[in-house]
Amino acid sequence: MFDFVVKGTAFSSENPKEVKSLKDHLFCISDKGIIAAVISPEEKEYSQIIKEYREQNKFYEYSENQIILPGFIDLHVHAPQWAQIGTAMDIPLNDWLHTYTFPLESKFSDEEFAKTVYSDLVSQLIANGTTTVLYFGTIHRAASRILAEICCDKGQRGLVGKVVMDDKEQNPDYYRDESTAEALAETEAFIQDIQKLAEKAPQGIYPVITPRFIPSCTDDALKGLGELAQKYDVHIQSHCSESDWEHNFVKDRFGKNDAMALNDFGLLTEKSVMAHCGLLADEDMQLFAKKGTAVAHCPISNVYFGNTVTPIAKLLHEYEVETGLGTDISGGFSPSLFDNVKQAVISSRMLEEGVDQNIESEKRGVANSRITLNEAFYLATAGGGESLSLPIGKLDVGYAWDAQIIDLVGKNTFIPRYSKEETLMNLFQKVLYLARPEYIQEVWIQGKKVHEINKRMTEV
Amino acid sequence: MFDFVVKGTAFSSENPKEVKSLKDHLFCISDKGIIAAVISPEEKEYSQIIKEYREQNKFYEYSENQIILPGFIDLHVHAPQWAQIGTAMDIPLNDWLHTYTFPLESKFSDEEFAKTVYSDLVSQLIANGTTTVLYFGTIHRAASRILAEICCDKGQRGLVGKVVMDDKEQNPDYYRDESTAEALAETEAFIQDIQKLAEKAPQGIYPVITPRFIPSCTDDALKGLGELAQKYDVHIQSHCSESDWEHNFVKDRFGKNDAMALNDFGLLTEKSVMAHCGLLADEDMQLFAKKGTAVAHCPISNVYFGNTVTPIAKLLHEYEVETGLGTDISGGFSPSLFDNVKQAVISSRMLEEGVDQNIESEKRGVANSRITLNEAFYLATAGGGESLSLPIGKLDVGYAWDAQIIDLVGKNTFIPRYSKEETLMNLFQKVLYLARPEYIQEVWIQGKKVHEINKRMTEV
Ligand SMILES: [Zn+2]
Ligand SMILES: [Zn+2]
Repeated sequence: MFDFVVKGTAFSSENPKEVKSLKDHLFCISDKGIIAAVISPEEKEYSQIIKEYREQNKFYEYSENQIILPGFIDLHVHAPQWAQIGTAMDIPLNDWLHTYTFPLESKFSDEEFAKTVYSDLVSQLIANGTTTVLYFGTIHRAASRILAEICCDKGQRGLVGKVVMDDKEQNPDYYRDESTAEALAETEAFIQDIQKLAEKAPQGIYPVITPRFIPSCTDDALKGLGELAQKYDVHIQSHCSESDWEHNFVKDRFGKNDAMALNDFGLLTEKSVMAHCGLLADEDMQLFAKKGTAVAHCPISNVYFGNTVTPIAKLLHEYEVETGLGTDISGGFSPSLFDNVKQAVISSRMLEEGVDQNIESEKRGVANSRITLNEAFYLATAGGGESLSLPIGKLDVGYAWDAQIIDLVGKNTFIPRYSKEETLMNLFQKVLYLARPEYIQEVWIQGKKVHEINKRMTEV
Repeated sequence: MFDFVVKGTAFSSENPKEVKSLKDHLFCISDKGIIAAVISPEEKEYSQIIKEYREQNKFYEYSENQIILPGFIDLHVHAPQWAQIGTAMDIPLNDWLHTYTFPLESKFSDEEFAKTVYSDLVSQLIANGTTTVLYFGTIHRAASRILAEICCDKGQRGLVGKVVMDDKEQNPDYYRDESTAEALAETEAFIQDIQKLAEKAPQGIYPVITPRFIPSCTDDALKGLGELAQKYDVHIQSHCSESDWEHNFVKDRFGKNDAMALNDFGLLTEKSVMAHCGLLADEDMQLFAKKGTAVAHCPISNVYFGNTVTPIAKLLHEYEVETGLGTDISGGFSPSLFDNVKQAVISSRMLEEGVDQNIESEKRGVANSRITLNEAFYLATAGGGESLSLPIGKLDVGYAWDAQIIDLVGKNTFIPRYSKEETLMNLFQKVLYLARPEYIQEVWIQGKKVHEINKRMTEV
């Protein structure tokens, strides 16, 4: 009846504020890789199921030194920028784009180079516990298709966009779409390509409409992309109100905020995910909530290129905007959502407390801005799933079996524990604050084990 | 003539702003574990030395997939709090002390418990590349001595303080010094103990005068500790202007800032290291500079308990105060100075940029506050050495051979590199942003290898 059954102690978000611990639960997985039942030790069929699936050799049991977390969902990755990760973090956005990033991205006309870089990237993200990724490719349809194929091969759930940047003023000649018409034609061909490819990817591979951001696109391209999104009912991604520079550029061009302008082109839908959003006004947040458009919060990247802290508590609780996390490789230096979970908490606390000692304590920050570790975990898991409108990010019935198994004490892992009475929620905090990618022993996506540590990562 | 010679590519701070790369250099180590010579491939004796020491089996050569960094220097660790690391991060300082921290620290009257926790801690810090640590123990002389003994056994350079907290109003009955007289007598006995122990520790073991902070000590204790510091010429550590609460408490009690009050008791010397210092006024910084007193910047901890960002650029460049980094276990959740290097950059950028989107861009932050990755690396290495007035933290003649060997591409490590023309300084940035403790293959302290990965950390 089930394809296999897993026994272990797991954590999963109940809602944005609460995480539930599931001690020694059974996760019963269907042949489609979906969690078909979750059974607690109190339930009467518990022992019977263990016995039955053990006999059939379809039972996996994790020890008390291991815990199960949902796989992480990364809502913002520039795949080609993996090749420059960790470098050039000291310069303003516009310089960073023209001196480092566009020259690098233009190299992805070379398909061999794309294969090498993308293969490493997908393996590394899986090893970091990331089971679903929303990817920006480059302007190249072929290289972007290669990225989708690599996701297929390695079993990662990938949402992939061929980037559109057609404005001749804003983009360098060596790296832009030849024309608006070609940008749209290539995007449409890419959508069809990927939808075909998806037929052999049980975990899901999706094409994504991807205008880089308003400054790099003509009005006609933005309009055409909005129409394609409607025609094919596909996901949309872009950047929105990331930095003062971008925010003001759009204001000058359209006399309105980024969010409003994107919406005019039909680019804010239930399936849209907008990166950063640090400078959204209240009415922009209202619009996001109404449209079901999600925010990809990239807290590490924002420190370098965002000019401010995205007000996540306000987005989550005041406007109930769908929100998840992104690494923003390589605007963010880390491929790990563990790092971004921590930075989301840190940035929100710094927004609440303020930063400048010369301002008196009561006026230093913005009250009620902090988020808890539970909320940051929600962003990396269930919040990401909601943002993508996919049944992922929770260890619950109807969700995909996307999981990471964390080793608490092993050859190269060590979560200190000195009290037998320690609560599970205490342990959860330690894992989120102390675990590193090397603590992730196995990664599962859609019911399939896609990574085991001690195998070389590049062999995954 | 030398005890052994190491060949490899290394990075070391030239000054607070500049890091130099040393490609394929020879590091010639004396029998005292000191770097006696550094020889570049251009020098004429280069080949001869390799030949000579290879023949004697006293030559270690690292590959082009490894780099050498100075060992990190952690200026602020509460050793007992290792037992609660990663937990209870959501509450204000005063609650955190009385609900979690003091009850935990009081358990270190149990010497077996102390042995277990301290042994894990020292091993873990070594595995994290930390070769020198300035430790707070607890009020217990015996347990604090155990910590120093463990440093001896494992070869780590430890500066250890028996904590003084004698004020009957401010400290709970279950966890404070019995009396002022006993606090001072125990401190003096501890100093003598540790100076004796140090005779068999070539890497150096030092006693440290350790008033917890002004709020927990009586005037008589503070005065007595200042006198002991002078009598024995030993290091001093405490907290200074950490949070609004502490800062205001001292102001109310003495009518002056924390720094001035500490100085009145003779507690600001060339060998003093004060943690946090987020709320130092300009005249406090001047006093620190004049006295040679150092700041232990703990950027992760400050996010949780500090209420503001310590203005590091100003301390370093405007007042030239000696400054290093601390993890502040467990006020900070991470035992890694890699994590604190990154957070030092991040916090300084957030101070410069500001955090509140509702403030217009020009007024949002404090200009010239950011520090570079080079400067943060300096804090974790040479700046820490200067702070402690010890010849450590640089890979240079006269400094101890304290080093960490970073594996760039191995079984569980992967620093992405796709260009043969990549500069060494680019690689340095990647290592600091992407390496995790698991990338540290070997750790050396005072010429002795004290850690190798793939050995269980607890066996070190
Ligand atoms: Zn981006
Ligand atoms: Zn402290």
